[in-house]
Amino acid sequence: MSASQVPPKFRIRVVFGSHGMIGPGKADLLEQIIRTGSIAAGGRALGMSYKRAWQLVETMNAMFEEPVVVGTRGGAKGGGAVLTQTGNRVLEAYRALERDAEKAAEPHVGRLQTMLRDIPDGK
Amino acid sequence: MSASQVPPKFRIRVVFGSHGMIGPGKADLLEQIIRTGSIAAGGRALGMSYKRAWQLVETMNAMFEEPVVVGTRGGAKGGGAVLTQTGNRVLEAYRALERDAEKAAEPHVGRLQTMLRDIPDGK
Repeated sequence: MSASQVPPKFRIRVVFGSHGMIGPGKADLLEQIIRTGSIAAGGRALGMSYKRAWQLVETMNAMFEEPVVVGTRGGAKGGGAVLTQTGNRVLEAYRALERDAEKAAEPHVGRLQTMLRDIPDGK
Repeated sequence: MSASQVPPKFRIRVVFGSHGMIGPGKADLLEQIIRTGSIAAGGRALGMSYKRAWQLVETMNAMFEEPVVVGTRGGAKGGGAVLTQTGNRVLEAYRALERDAEKAAEPHVGRLQTMLRDIPDGK
């Protein structure tokens, strides 16, 4: 496969000193919690253990001024979880950050791609 | 410490499918090889084992069309290592990618910072 045919994938972590960091793992989990309405199911969709998903949510809830995910007790879907307004804003800011960073990086990624070794098709 | 006072640090990995990936670890190692003239000393400066530094160099040498680091046999500094032209170009492209991506991400990082919880000064 020609190197230039490979669509590169970015993984961007932003570390805010002792405040903590945000990266693709946390953003993906927030998205899956929106989709599934549950921390456990959201984590499972990413191959994450129940414990790991809860730890990431607790870390994010402690990191931001308002919690990013809260439990929904009672109702038809008792025990579920939803993103707060802050949670939605954090996710939206991180995805916009990724988009703009990737776009700005494009010419440099192109230069790196021209230097990659071609991989035989395996035929 | 107020959240807005924390200069955020980016860690950007670019994954070129099965060709491999480049990120801050490999870029830092290339820089330290330039500085020290040696793979072992370069890795040591980053708290990396001799084995790990060599593995990263071998991975990069296989990933790009030309090797990024070559050994300098004989001479006053026998057993040293230098970056090839490709190695210098890869490092330069990755650093430029980081710079431009971080600049494009600034407004979004600012939005995330305003949402961070303040950390007491520890007094």
